[in-house]
Amino acid sequence: MTLFIDMDEVIADTYMAHIEIYNKDFDGSLTVEECMGKEVWQCVPEEHQKSVRDHAKQEGFFINLKPIKDSKEVLQALHEKYALFIASAAMQFPNSLREKSQWLDEHFPFIHWKNRILCGNKHILKGDLLIDDRSYNLDSFDGDTLLFTSPHNIHSNGHPRAKNWLEVADKLL
Amino acid sequence: MTLFIDMDEVIADTYMAHIEIYNKDFDGSLTVEECMGKEVWQCVPEEHQKSVRDHAKQEGFFINLKPIKDSKEVLQALHEKYALFIASAAMQFPNSLREKSQWLDEHFPFIHWKNRILCGNKHILKGDLLIDDRSYNLDSFDGDTLLFTSPHNIHSNGHPRAKNWLEVADKLL
Repeated sequence: MTLFIDMDEVIADTYMAHIEIYNKDFDGSLTVEECMGKEVWQCVPEEHQKSVRDHAKQEGFFINLKPIKDSKEVLQALHEKYALFIASAAMQFPNSLREKSQWLDEHFPFIHWKNRILCGNKHILKGDLLIDDRSYNLDSFDGDTLLFTSPHNIHSNGHPRAKNWLEVADKLL
Repeated sequence: MTLFIDMDEVIADTYMAHIEIYNKDFDGSLTVEECMGKEVWQCVPEEHQKSVRDHAKQEGFFINLKPIKDSKEVLQALHEKYALFIASAAMQFPNSLREKSQWLDEHFPFIHWKNRILCGNKHILKGDLLIDDRSYNLDSFDGDTLLFTSPHNIHSNGHPRAKNWLEVADKLL
């Protein structure tokens, strides 16, 4: 079985990073609870939205992300059982490409460079299962899908859902 | 129709770049004619082979590549007719990722970031046709194939061949 796993908000915690950087930059007290069902930039005053949307262009943004809870252990086990690929829609931010590669080296060294894909559009992937936090990526994928719960997607429907990595492990291991 | 096109030695002339850098570094006079059927590193004295194999790790190697003859015009026309994606096995050289993105911005600006794929292994691509200079990429692709002639692959068999971009245009336009 060939398995594709998204990076941002699935194994790398961009959502909390956006909140932390926003709070630091604007001396804010935004919490994840206030953001449920929305993107972080939608939860800040309009005059700060561009700043939040530009986080991903900052040098160091991707390299400093924390891995999502239990992702390392579950991916290690999935890697031993399946053909596992990381598939990240990273081409939008060319500065991020090297950081994303370095981040994988640091946190997921068992995922060989041959098993890393940076793409713009996931409908060109051929495999059995895609785990992603974005419904539009899952909609266009020609295989089984699993929506990985992230604060922004709690109201999304239409795909089977895993709310954390232990649930993925339950389904696949 | 979904079309995947490789970068190195298909739209970007890495082969001649290897020869030029080698000749400059070692005051050499290697020509492409001497290299036919081989990789450039196989055509230099053993003590220089590592240097040639490390070219791709040098900063500036990928950004300075010349586009392959007629590739811009033919890709522009293919882009207007088909769903065209660039698929480069770039993950081996993390330093190259940003340069490859910049190089595409410079020479092929009409190819949107959503249509750019950096991957390690091309068997995960789902589409109709792959144009590549490496038989091993074409072997594992689940669709039609076209071997793009490069000095190193002149003796390869087993796939339909295009010896230049005008031949590709003849077949596809």
